[in-house]
Amino acid sequence: MAKITKVSPLAPKGGFPKLPQIDGVRFSAAAAGIKYAGRTDVMLAQIDAGSAIAGAFTRSSTRSAPVLDCQSKLGSVEDDSKGFAFLVNSGNSNAFTGGVGVAAVEAITNATAKTLNLPASHIYTASTGVIGEPLPYEKITHALDGLHGALKADGIEDAARAIMTTDTFAKGASATCEIGGVEVAVAGIAKGSGMIAPDMATMLVYIFTDAKISQLGLQEMVSRLNENTFNSITVDSDTSTSDSLLVAATGTSGANVEYNETFERTLGVVMKDLAHQVVRDGEGATKFVEIRVGGATDNVDARKVAMSIANSPLVKTAIAGEDPNWGRVVMAVGKSGANADRDRLSIWFGDVLVAEDGWVSPTYVEADAAAHMKNQDLRIRVDLGLGAGHSTVWTCDLTHGYIEINADYRS
Amino acid sequence: MAKITKVSPLAPKGGFPKLPQIDGVRFSAAAAGIKYAGRTDVMLAQIDAGSAIAGAFTRSSTRSAPVLDCQSKLGSVEDDSKGFAFLVNSGNSNAFTGGVGVAAVEAITNATAKTLNLPASHIYTASTGVIGEPLPYEKITHALDGLHGALKADGIEDAARAIMTTDTFAKGASATCEIGGVEVAVAGIAKGSGMIAPDMATMLVYIFTDAKISQLGLQEMVSRLNENTFNSITVDSDTSTSDSLLVAATGTSGANVEYNETFERTLGVVMKDLAHQVVRDGEGATKFVEIRVGGATDNVDARKVAMSIANSPLVKTAIAGEDPNWGRVVMAVGKSGANADRDRLSIWFGDVLVAEDGWVSPTYVEADAAAHMKNQDLRIRVDLGLGAGHSTVWTCDLTHGYIEINADYRS
Repeated sequence: MAKITKVSPLAPKGGFPKLPQIDGVRFSAAAAGIKYAGRTDVMLAQIDAGSAIAGAFTRSSTRSAPVLDCQSKLGSVEDDSKGFAFLVNSGNSNAFTGGVGVAAVEAITNATAKTLNLPASHIYTASTGVIGEPLPYEKITHALDGLHGALKADGIEDAARAIMTTDTFAKGASATCEIGGVEVAVAGIAKGSGMIAPDMATMLVYIFTDAKISQLGLQEMVSRLNENTFNSITVDSDTSTSDSLLVAATGTSGANVEYNETFERTLGVVMKDLAHQVVRDGEGATKFVEIRVGGATDNVDARKVAMSIANSPLVKTAIAGEDPNWGRVVMAVGKSGANADRDRLSIWFGDVLVAEDGWVSPTYVEADAAAHMKNQDLRIRVDLGLGAGHSTVWTCDLTHGYIEINADYRS
Repeated sequence: MAKITKVSPLAPKGGFPKLPQIDGVRFSAAAAGIKYAGRTDVMLAQIDAGSAIAGAFTRSSTRSAPVLDCQSKLGSVEDDSKGFAFLVNSGNSNAFTGGVGVAAVEAITNATAKTLNLPASHIYTASTGVIGEPLPYEKITHALDGLHGALKADGIEDAARAIMTTDTFAKGASATCEIGGVEVAVAGIAKGSGMIAPDMATMLVYIFTDAKISQLGLQEMVSRLNENTFNSITVDSDTSTSDSLLVAATGTSGANVEYNETFERTLGVVMKDLAHQVVRDGEGATKFVEIRVGGATDNVDARKVAMSIANSPLVKTAIAGEDPNWGRVVMAVGKSGANADRDRLSIWFGDVLVAEDGWVSPTYVEADAAAHMKNQDLRIRVDLGLGAGHSTVWTCDLTHGYIEINADYRS
């Protein structure tokens, strides 16, 4: 396995951010010894009664037992006089583990429910790490009393660190807004894009807010925002069997945010920030790239084109080489399956118009585009010249670092 | 630009094969000086009257001017008392060159038609090399008299060499069969998968046979065979704007192969051989991988799964690392969008059953699979356990060599 010793060059400066405490949520972390030595590997978040929980999960048809369990629970809660808990371990993904995997999820949720005096249907678990190996769930259940006793309001950074696999930095983000004169806070943590053999770069995201909202209202907001945040990032086009996002709204601020656009924007800021951090920790990444597509027949086509560019190995290696290779962008548009007319296509690198009307722009000077490519954060913009459909996605470059992390080892 | 100095380790042993001469076809090559120094860069193939021409082309929506021109001509020929010609240059792809690109194709086809005394509608051209730069077509038209004078029956290897870009070896293949006591021969050449900035790994294929068949009959055969040969290979999931396949049947053997399955199999052998050679010259490739998917709901789903595995950067890097990482295969099945049931999935590396019934196989010993991964030619087999759909595709691994060729330069 490749040893990851350096923090990604794209990591936010200044380390883990100071996150606001969300009233009604407490965190703890423990070293259960699932796989890693000398570090925490289980986090517990307990969420008070009266909260709403929403989420989004991988669409993989081979998704893991914990994902299936969470999906079956979400939105079906009947007893809101009880609280909730998130229990997450790193070191083992409990994916592709057949019947024993299902039994492990049951054992963990039942034990957590008992420890916290909650219904098992209020316990959401996730696991990330090696796949195909039985999860040593007793190590987790043995740690529960300690986790319970250690719960504290300012434990969110410890939680963020406990769920890392080979992430090169812990990921946190927050935002606040005022609703009817009351300040509402949103704070979230994520892990993702590090890789450990034979793990699959699982992305896990947990977001908390003291806003007051119904489960259905929160779920609609999360599903909508998810499309333009976590579902709009790609490191290498591969999809984990375990990707999970959970959002808990405790209501403790008293501010009602049902259908509230200001709150939705605020939640969106945190989701986008965490999504970008996952890309910034992309394996081997040295460039963060925003790809904006406009002028498509519709938004679905725009997204096809944006993802085709973002996932193209030839585009991603050109970016790694700081090469303003617009020919590869034309190629990626062409293979996307979206409506496109070669002779109406315009392409910008940063603010530099590179190609228009089916050929290199008469104003194009390669040195200008080459200068943009030297930046750490890049923008590629494509206008298809056909309609009003648009889409923005984020990705990173494809470098020797990616090959080192994923090929230069034997499991 | 990365300098490519070594022949691919996957190249067929023994160099360019001895190909049978196809009666009714003559070849020549010339050094027109389009881009490269000290090598040939234009090939001409003249095909006698009474022949049938079929083909297949890239589905890219940004396809090049020569591709659009070929597509408009194929199957619409009314005068079979005339022959045909293929005129192909390397060094410049005439792609994304707007109106001047269209004019260049016209100039070349008109000049070739005049030189050979053929209708312009019987001239098929192709171009491969840098994109976005005007094709210096006068260099090609000036070379036409020389090309015409040099035509010879045994010139196919020269033709194969003239269309190479950064291919590391020239690609040829042949097969014969007996139809009604008459020997029928098929001989073909291809280029592809080498890369030159900012080229796009264009694949060009020209196949010749002395079989007798109608244009429609040949086209149906070629379209059918293409799905399981050239459309079943992938190096990096990127699609050229110029991919072109043309097949010419001269009829000079006198053997009628209309609806003839023996001939179709023989043509398929040559097409598959050339397709495999393109993968074997894949950028940075050190492993040739056959991926067989069975037990799918239908063939479309089987193909989705096979291509998802073949294009997964995580699967391809694992292969490069000789790592029997079946977890990544499960992941690729899951993200494919095809019907799949995690608990019915079986996976083999070579003949080693790795996973079954949703978990690692009880008979699995990792050393066995690891031994298979050390081979240069690998087989991965997946059974979805759902139906009778099946598909086979071929790919190569993803290595530092790919990054070197595509990222380690500035255009």
